[in-house]
Amino acid sequence: MVMKLHCFGESGNAYKCALALELAGEPWEPVHVDFFRGATRAPAFRALNVMGEVPVLEDGETVLTQSGAILDYISTVTGKLGGKLAADRREVLRWILFDTQKVSGMAGPLRFQMNFLPEEKRDPAVAAFLSGRLHSALKIMETHLADREWLVGDGVTIADCACCGYLYYDEDFTFDRVQYPAIDAWLSRLSALPGWKHPYELMTRAFPG
Amino acid sequence: MVMKLHCFGESGNAYKCALALELAGEPWEPVHVDFFRGATRAPAFRALNVMGEVPVLEDGETVLTQSGAILDYISTVTGKLGGKLAADRREVLRWILFDTQKVSGMAGPLRFQMNFLPEEKRDPAVAAFLSGRLHSALKIMETHLADREWLVGDGVTIADCACCGYLYYDEDFTFDRVQYPAIDAWLSRLSALPGWKHPYELMTRAFPG
Repeated sequence: MVMKLHCFGESGNAYKCALALELAGEPWEPVHVDFFRGATRAPAFRALNVMGEVPVLEDGETVLTQSGAILDYISTVTGKLGGKLAADRREVLRWILFDTQKVSGMAGPLRFQMNFLPEEKRDPAVAAFLSGRLHSALKIMETHLADREWLVGDGVTIADCACCGYLYYDEDFTFDRVQYPAIDAWLSRLSALPGWKHPYELMTRAFPG
Repeated sequence: MVMKLHCFGESGNAYKCALALELAGEPWEPVHVDFFRGATRAPAFRALNVMGEVPVLEDGETVLTQSGAILDYISTVTGKLGGKLAADRREVLRWILFDTQKVSGMAGPLRFQMNFLPEEKRDPAVAAFLSGRLHSALKIMETHLADREWLVGDGVTIADCACCGYLYYDEDFTFDRVQYPAIDAWLSRLSALPGWKHPYELMTRAFPG
């Protein structure tokens, strides 16, 4: 039985996992979550996952949430994308945590604010706050990537899958690749890998359009 | 040579690591970071740590940032606080990530906004946004802890050290233990453990008073 990923196209956190599965060459099956119609608040979904989060990975009896934990699982099970050296493992975890707190952790809510929240609920002060924090984190990534091909070690890892989670989306969230040449080159390097696909190619969109 | 933790009292992220070191019975030495006078922006600190973050753990040649990665390191090196079963490890990681994104990830900036930012820079809209997200996460923790003593397995782990990082501070950040009886009982259970200390007992305060 192949792994199932409960996901929807707009979720960058789900994309990280879908991308890692593709890059690892692991067969998987998307289970569409109708997020904008409240699917994550339904009792069946809450029974699967008390945190009410997307994505959820199901692999037989194993049910996991939090994209960083799912990435760790995919890497462990497939033996891929975890870095070559033992010392890489801790660096991979560090970048996944950095992403969770400061890159995707800011880009996700910011993109939601600017694109998916009903207009009357949007707040420019909140968007400005999130954007300021996102760009502080992007500057650190830009510095780190200035003289490296990948975030950790000398090959692609789940740390790259994590940190790029929101960065291929076209909706405006104040991120412009042109402003970050090292990040731009790294995103091009990633999207040139065999198996890479854009989030909307891997997962069905949920936003009512 | 004992481990050194670059820290200051107001940092809940540093507290998580200091607390884990105490609970593990591992000798350690605090190195005070004069945060509010710009110490994390100084070249010497940036050389130690490109991310410019507090805490930083130094253990001989090993230099680590991101409290979740430091907690993982402390647990690995001491063989303590990692959970008893192999299956616990993934749950521990999941709660550390949940905390990084949604509990400490919101409580930290919110407490900063409400207490340490110059008053003219505070924004009630930002505080309301962060508070809303924090309380959503606290409700999930409250549900999870309703019928358990610890977040993972049947003993204290670094997941508990992570999630309590900001919850013992007295400064107002819209969290009141009385509203969360299961969290309240869990915090009391934690603070009754041998070795537990309040953040301001473990680390020197940096906020100019």
